[in-house]
Amino acid sequence: MERLQKDAPSNWSKWGEEDQVGALNYLSEESVLTGLKAVSKGRTFTLQIPMTSGSGPVFPGRIPTQHFMAQDASVYSAGKAEALAGGVKFSDDAAFMYLQGTTHVDSLAHAWYGDQVYGGKSDQTTVHGHSHADVAALGEKGIVGRAVLLDVGRYQNKNAPYRLAPDTCISLRDLQDTAKAQKVKINKSDILVIRTGSIARFWEEEPDAEWDANTEPGLCYSTELVNWVDQMEIPMIAADNLAIEKVVQEIDGETVIIPLHGAFIRDLGVVLSEIYWLDDLAADSAEDGKYDFLLVAAPLKMEGGTGAPVNPVAIK
Amino acid sequence: MERLQKDAPSNWSKWGEEDQVGALNYLSEESVLTGLKAVSKGRTFTLQIPMTSGSGPVFPGRIPTQHFMAQDASVYSAGKAEALAGGVKFSDDAAFMYLQGTTHVDSLAHAWYGDQVYGGKSDQTTVHGHSHADVAALGEKGIVGRAVLLDVGRYQNKNAPYRLAPDTCISLRDLQDTAKAQKVKINKSDILVIRTGSIARFWEEEPDAEWDANTEPGLCYSTELVNWVDQMEIPMIAADNLAIEKVVQEIDGETVIIPLHGAFIRDLGVVLSEIYWLDDLAADSAEDGKYDFLLVAAPLKMEGGTGAPVNPVAIK
Amino acid sequence: MERLQKDAPSNWSKWGEEDQVGALNYLSEESVLTGLKAVSKGRTFTLQIPMTSGSGPVFPGRIPTQHFMAQDASVYSAGKAEALAGGVKFSDDAAFMYLQGTTHVDSLAHAWYGDQVYGGKSDQTTVHGHSHADVAALGEKGIVGRAVLLDVGRYQNKNAPYRLAPDTCISLRDLQDTAKAQKVKINKSDILVIRTGSIARFWEEEPDAEWDANTEPGLCYSTELVNWVDQMEIPMIAADNLAIEKVVQEIDGETVIIPLHGAFIRDLGVVLSEIYWLDDLAADSAEDGKYDFLLVAAPLKMEGGTGAPVNPVAIK
Amino acid sequence: MERLQKDAPSNWSKWGEEDQVGALNYLSEESVLTGLKAVSKGRTFTLQIPMTSGSGPVFPGRIPTQHFMAQDASVYSAGKAEALAGGVKFSDDAAFMYLQGTTHVDSLAHAWYGDQVYGGKSDQTTVHGHSHADVAALGEKGIVGRAVLLDVGRYQNKNAPYRLAPDTCISLRDLQDTAKAQKVKINKSDILVIRTGSIARFWEEEPDAEWDANTEPGLCYSTELVNWVDQMEIPMIAADNLAIEKVVQEIDGETVIIPLHGAFIRDLGVVLSEIYWLDDLAADSAEDGKYDFLLVAAPLKMEGGTGAPVNPVAIK
Repeated sequence: MERLQKDAPSNWSKWGEEDQVGALNYLSEESVLTGLKAVSKGRTFTLQIPMTSGSGPVFPGRIPTQHFMAQDASVYSAGKAEALAGGVKFSDDAAFMYLQGTTHVDSLAHAWYGDQVYGGKSDQTTVHGHSHADVAALGEKGIVGRAVLLDVGRYQNKNAPYRLAPDTCISLRDLQDTAKAQKVKINKSDILVIRTGSIARFWEEEPDAEWDANTEPGLCYSTELVNWVDQMEIPMIAADNLAIEKVVQEIDGETVIIPLHGAFIRDLGVVLSEIYWLDDLAADSAEDGKYDFLLVAAPLKMEGGTGAPVNPVAIK
Repeated sequence: MERLQKDAPSNWSKWGEEDQVGALNYLSEESVLTGLKAVSKGRTFTLQIPMTSGSGPVFPGRIPTQHFMAQDASVYSAGKAEALAGGVKFSDDAAFMYLQGTTHVDSLAHAWYGDQVYGGKSDQTTVHGHSHADVAALGEKGIVGRAVLLDVGRYQNKNAPYRLAPDTCISLRDLQDTAKAQKVKINKSDILVIRTGSIARFWEEEPDAEWDANTEPGLCYSTELVNWVDQMEIPMIAADNLAIEKVVQEIDGETVIIPLHGAFIRDLGVVLSEIYWLDDLAADSAEDGKYDFLLVAAPLKMEGGTGAPVNPVAIK
Repeated sequence: MERLQKDAPSNWSKWGEEDQVGALNYLSEESVLTGLKAVSKGRTFTLQIPMTSGSGPVFPGRIPTQHFMAQDASVYSAGKAEALAGGVKFSDDAAFMYLQGTTHVDSLAHAWYGDQVYGGKSDQTTVHGHSHADVAALGEKGIVGRAVLLDVGRYQNKNAPYRLAPDTCISLRDLQDTAKAQKVKINKSDILVIRTGSIARFWEEEPDAEWDANTEPGLCYSTELVNWVDQMEIPMIAADNLAIEKVVQEIDGETVIIPLHGAFIRDLGVVLSEIYWLDDLAADSAEDGKYDFLLVAAPLKMEGGTGAPVNPVAIK
Repeated sequence: MERLQKDAPSNWSKWGEEDQVGALNYLSEESVLTGLKAVSKGRTFTLQIPMTSGSGPVFPGRIPTQHFMAQDASVYSAGKAEALAGGVKFSDDAAFMYLQGTTHVDSLAHAWYGDQVYGGKSDQTTVHGHSHADVAALGEKGIVGRAVLLDVGRYQNKNAPYRLAPDTCISLRDLQDTAKAQKVKINKSDILVIRTGSIARFWEEEPDAEWDANTEPGLCYSTELVNWVDQMEIPMIAADNLAIEKVVQEIDGETVIIPLHGAFIRDLGVVLSEIYWLDDLAADSAEDGKYDFLLVAAPLKMEGGTGAPVNPVAIK
């Protein structure tokens, strides 16, 4: 990565030494107002995938969320608890989860290369809880602005369910061509929401199988892409796959794993947000031809966390 | 509760037998547009309290979120893992949490009386995962609309930090007087966000002590309040305490625990959303005199869940 | 099961209405002394399988134990914690686990048929924590006595690694023939430890695949077997597979799942203990020809638990 | 600690460079046979404290075990699951636990000083799972031998419930005097089980309060004690408190926290095992005057773990 990113842009000093939100700084009050202007009908879409106890597409090494009722009606019917004074009864629940095991936002210290994370801090700040650039900082800031859906899956595959084939690389040119075909303009400070169609495959094909994250279609690294994202001052990129980018890429004949995590998160402070559910929003956009919207996405304020679940809302 | 709510309003048949989102049905596309009109500056506030591993105000019986790094920079520096091909490294984390152990949204089957939950379904639907009216239904719908902050704490206590005393009952009249003093109009279908000042006490007074939920100030049950909420078609009530209402109440000389959970959630399908952080929003409103805003709050889509964390966003 | 077990033996009234340990009552102080007599060399074997974070043979629906360091040396080297006064440092850890996700003991209310568990209590006693016949009762009693290893795998398959083929049914006759070939006598009140060779297959064949519990070799239901176990006053049966018995069995042309769980646990109060590691003990026994030993196995005293991990110790 | 232990004994090279079980090496087959000779009646005692979901004496920073039923009879009675083919039903459960949150065995890399753990390995071996000296090594070995109960609580306090006062230091002399008064001889390679009476206080005094580990009575550091434990080749010391030793000690006018963890675990490889339930065993011993027994204690084989639960069995 050091060699790859040698002449690449960096935002480490741009927003002060202690900055923890990176390119989210591009999201000003004005950006919020710009985002609002993208709303016409008032139609909303929630973009988190379902959280199903014990099932879901997760990276190897993680497990799907485990959900347990700590209390429910059976404790009353089995005579193990009495209703509260006056008669109210209640249920309660708990969960064990990988914080990136569903739709989520990555913190800016989630991925790095060398021994420095975003902002130039030591990667030792990540040890047993991020003391710099945790996901709570992003949750505190909140992510609100104009977003553009780039339905690359539908643009490149005219047949339902409009998906990119496994292993497909998405280039900057693909993004731009898609935008052009969709007749939507990408403006400075816009949030990019990229639809590959990939995540829907999980439920349709083999719901109980381990999800093969490595072959998902996604962005591929190029100098042009990194520079463009920087120049366009993109605050966040979201997508309906596990890693935004193709996990395994070939660059100059060399295999590189998730290089854009190094370029975007560590060097530019661009926030990545993954595992979106975009099929409903995309179908609606295909129908009305409107591809921009207000995105509101505030991850949980998990202090020290490297990632946190989010249920993003698109308002058209 | 049966006696108390005998002549009280019910919305069980209003939106069909299979409805799971209750009064959120009042939030139409038009409501969304109405909510947008409440935005002027584009200023945002995120309303979740901090999620601090091992610490936080929770009801007795629950424990604060437990956060663990599954991987961080130390695995590389200790020589236990190698960077990915190309050099990228990453951290990963997991958590065990009570789903109502931070700012959250209650599902419509979270609380009930008798043996029926919202919609008239058997309370056995809650057993080991809500098969009716789970929180995922609310997460799927999303909560977007005009909200009004009612800063009862500041209205009744002119001294910083502008809090209601423990054990204070908030009546319908208190809400109305507060709105009047704030010069804000509560319209039909508005979301109510009630500030008591209570939750901030947790961090200031005894961060490690068990939080005494029972003495928190909150709404108190009255027929007038229940009827007004129904007639105003309030979709959701949020507050900066653990239960929206005062946990222990005296009604006609009898002690009743969380009766409004029965009246609002079970009978009216009004959504309750608890443990908000409102002090920053309230301070800003006190300064600019603007008490309405767009609220966007989409809880995690935990299938079968009775509650789910949320990081609500207020946009002024 | 009702029909199958119609004329089968039951121990429901044998040790009093409130009994929670069933056939463990056969393990008297005298049995302990008998067990001690089986020791000659003083050689010990621990019979739990390894608990590997994120990996292991578990029934579908369960997940392998998830292990996290809550603290380790990296918090000191990263400057995030100081040594205790005087200089001592320490590590700490936590785990999320299915209680039957490793070598474990089943409680006597773990499996049942009809609506009564062992002792004739309502199966509603299991709701949200066993109030009758929990695993803590077995953990409190402890399991100490003479045990006999029946290495059916080695008896029926003379080639290393001496395993039964998948889907093999083990009959009473197989047990008796094995004992005879091993020249070991099964006495009244002996604990039976049955080696199929199955569990070792998990690590050798496909460590990351989901374990196919359904095809494991194991005991198969027969009236003779149930009666013999009753007459021999067997307190506990352990084996190196997930269910002691073959999970899917054909009885009189009908498919029946884990019927011996109904016959042994519910009707006789015979304790089942599963997922043992027996290959080392068995190899040693094959060498010295000694197949009886003192078994000491005390599951964790999880109150309300239906099962609990155990690391059994065999002393020869 | 460096200064304190400057001339103190060390066992780092005694059992080879890769040794992970330390003083458990003293437990030979002969020791097992010696242990068996301590049995006379065949009476057993299980020494784990109860594991109660959500309650228990734990060090600050840990939480008591959280236990959940993943399935129980209510899923059948609520019509959410059908009995298995043939009619068998079952319950299932899971838990989140700190591995040292109940009666447990510490691994030999659990505590250290400087930057080396037991055996001279780098403390970086503890990072995200002990790669050296994990608790699984102790679970694999098993702990079986003659143990001596030293009921210091009863020796020093003749009144029920025979407890040491908070803050009491136990010296080598106290141990020896207790043994003498009990007329029991401590032999080489004996396991020491020290009763303070402390842990029982938790349930009697304030079951829901946070347990004050700092004031528990326990061993106090002295050169004589450390040397004696070394010369006596003690493999393991267990006690009914959270840390074996007094947590906060004054040595030469300086406050030192858990110094014996440094001396015993790190330097000598002596295993510590904590939070025992000894009141029943002690009462029995007070009655029959017999203070030695066979101890069998095999912690769970948690790979990489720094500690693991155990339900030790004493056989008299």
